[in-house]
Amino acid sequence: MTTKIVSNPLDRSNLGEIQTEVVHIPEPLELSCGLSLIDHVLCVETYGQLNKNKSNAVLVCHALTGNHHAAGWHIGDKKPGWWDNVIGPGKSIDTEQFFVVSPSNIGTCHGSTGPLSINPITNAAWGPNFPKLQISDWTASQRMLMDHYKINCWAAVIGGSLGGMQAMHWSITYPDKLLSAVVIASAMKLSAQNIAFNEIARRAIKADPNFHHGHYQEKNKKPLQGLALARMIGHVTYLSDLSMAEKFGRELLNGNFLGEKSESIEFKIESYLNYQGDKFAHGFDANSYILLTKMLDHFDFGSEHSKQPSAAFEVASCKFLVLTFSSDWRFPPKRSREITKALITAGRDVTHAEISSSQGHDAFLLPNSRYQKILGTFLNRIALNVNC
Amino acid sequence: MTTKIVSNPLDRSNLGEIQTEVVHIPEPLELSCGLSLIDHVLCVETYGQLNKNKSNAVLVCHALTGNHHAAGWHIGDKKPGWWDNVIGPGKSIDTEQFFVVSPSNIGTCHGSTGPLSINPITNAAWGPNFPKLQISDWTASQRMLMDHYKINCWAAVIGGSLGGMQAMHWSITYPDKLLSAVVIASAMKLSAQNIAFNEIARRAIKADPNFHHGHYQEKNKKPLQGLALARMIGHVTYLSDLSMAEKFGRELLNGNFLGEKSESIEFKIESYLNYQGDKFAHGFDANSYILLTKMLDHFDFGSEHSKQPSAAFEVASCKFLVLTFSSDWRFPPKRSREITKALITAGRDVTHAEISSSQGHDAFLLPNSRYQKILGTFLNRIALNVNC
Repeated sequence: MTTKIVSNPLDRSNLGEIQTEVVHIPEPLELSCGLSLIDHVLCVETYGQLNKNKSNAVLVCHALTGNHHAAGWHIGDKKPGWWDNVIGPGKSIDTEQFFVVSPSNIGTCHGSTGPLSINPITNAAWGPNFPKLQISDWTASQRMLMDHYKINCWAAVIGGSLGGMQAMHWSITYPDKLLSAVVIASAMKLSAQNIAFNEIARRAIKADPNFHHGHYQEKNKKPLQGLALARMIGHVTYLSDLSMAEKFGRELLNGNFLGEKSESIEFKIESYLNYQGDKFAHGFDANSYILLTKMLDHFDFGSEHSKQPSAAFEVASCKFLVLTFSSDWRFPPKRSREITKALITAGRDVTHAEISSSQGHDAFLLPNSRYQKILGTFLNRIALNVNC
Repeated sequence: MTTKIVSNPLDRSNLGEIQTEVVHIPEPLELSCGLSLIDHVLCVETYGQLNKNKSNAVLVCHALTGNHHAAGWHIGDKKPGWWDNVIGPGKSIDTEQFFVVSPSNIGTCHGSTGPLSINPITNAAWGPNFPKLQISDWTASQRMLMDHYKINCWAAVIGGSLGGMQAMHWSITYPDKLLSAVVIASAMKLSAQNIAFNEIARRAIKADPNFHHGHYQEKNKKPLQGLALARMIGHVTYLSDLSMAEKFGRELLNGNFLGEKSESIEFKIESYLNYQGDKFAHGFDANSYILLTKMLDHFDFGSEHSKQPSAAFEVASCKFLVLTFSSDWRFPPKRSREITKALITAGRDVTHAEISSSQGHDAFLLPNSRYQKILGTFLNRIALNVNC
């Protein structure tokens, strides 16, 4: 079953009508934790046209707080999808060549099966009892989505950050199902510092009196303060010190200090962060946030098969593009160099580029001509191979 | 009035009896915000002996959450004072040569006048109504403390982080009252990223339902969750990615993942951070934390006199030692180079060293032979000048 919601965009991305589908996957999905989802739904947007031999499909894997709305505009949108900079006609992921498939993964909170969904066994929302997930559960669900579209092989599986982890996992789990993997601003596993920031975010959520051990929905509450704090912490790690300095410096909100009332918000950076935190809190689900950060913490490339990364990559057969940004301190360039080193040791075909940017981890979402050119060139070569 | 509390230490630092004094400063202290404290008290520890001509005194300025207990052991202490690595007989700040004065500054919560103290006008605790402070208020109070000890000139004013800011401020505010300033792991002003982390910490405290807009004491409550989160955020910024990796890596608390219960604490770093946060929350005051982080945010060296840092340093006459640590990302080496550059432009006598360390901002508190040697050598030369 597929419900198609066709929006009538202003077409600012020249993407034409954006297909938002609610794809029902009727088969059971066995999860890494030992439980199964008897069925599940995925909200999916697609851009471009699937060619006759279904060889031009690209899977876009979203990051921590991403969703299926990767490109184009829906009515009422104040900004386009999160990767509109690279997806569209003539862009790096060229929708005149590729059929781009962008699902919201399970466990998230934008329509795909997750903590906000109804557990068919209990007829109540899953809430905090939604099964704990690993990256392998996402790729397994995406593998089912592939069958839904009758695609036999992705031209590329592409993602940044947590999305890059999915691309790496695809390359060794379904090696004959993708021609290329693009791993951007990612890492084979989180550092202790990464885990630390995630844990602080989780504690902020759990400490919110409206969290109720995750059962806030039943009480018609939402841990907005905790979620806002979690986002603020995350947000600082997405930006570089330099990009924050360039954007905000030490500029004051009202032109001068507030003196006696100086426990209030005074700097522009404070106001910006609080705004971002509050906005996020209203649009995201706390149980999802906890679940997703735990997925990140647990990911340890190759460990599933008790293998060193280079040994794990030996089963891969696709081409790789590894991209990283100079000022990214969440997943710094050395983490990408580890990926590339493991690929080289495994004898794989890999292109690696470190892109100069002052914009930190967020750079993978932002316009950058060198980044877009390298990504586009790599994918154009893939397009030639698949007769897009 | 001075109350002396003499502890009977186990003498593990060979410091002998540690003097903890509650020094009453009877004169009014005019604050930068326009208000005055009609009198105030400072808790002070001193180490070593003041020489006859009172020329061998060193002022130690504590950082954000520091206090007067900088060295030695009190009965029941599980660890010595926070700077025991460098203060003591034969150590870098050699108590056989120097008389070390270590006060808890006003606004803190360890006995000196601050939010926990009684406002003599209202006969109730100041709480959130304690006057907002600037670094200049601390140096003014320390200047009064100097008179209490009848010291005419400090041999050195020394501090790390926020302590370094006090040393810089001393050098231009009371230029004839110090022979040297030692500025360690510090900065002339906070970056937007620094301010961002402070603001998240403050929001975490304020979002705690036990905060009650700062009036938690009247309600016999304490915003422990908020304070713990604030400390956890701070703590991550004090450590380097590498030091966390060396100390914790991705080691698991119980040897394996908890599967279905995986929203719980699993990694050692999570357990460590939560423990540190909770321990801190019980020993610190939330209103103090907010006040102190705002002091940090506001500090902007030279701006008080509407001067560029190099112009501000022109009035200084002391020798400077500027120390920084390679892996410090809270106040990275470039921030110290800015200080030294301004000092050179101002024609001041400055020694600068960047010390190789994997321990992040915390390095200034930890043993490091090169660091201790450079600091000791610099101070030995000062000691020769003052006939210690």
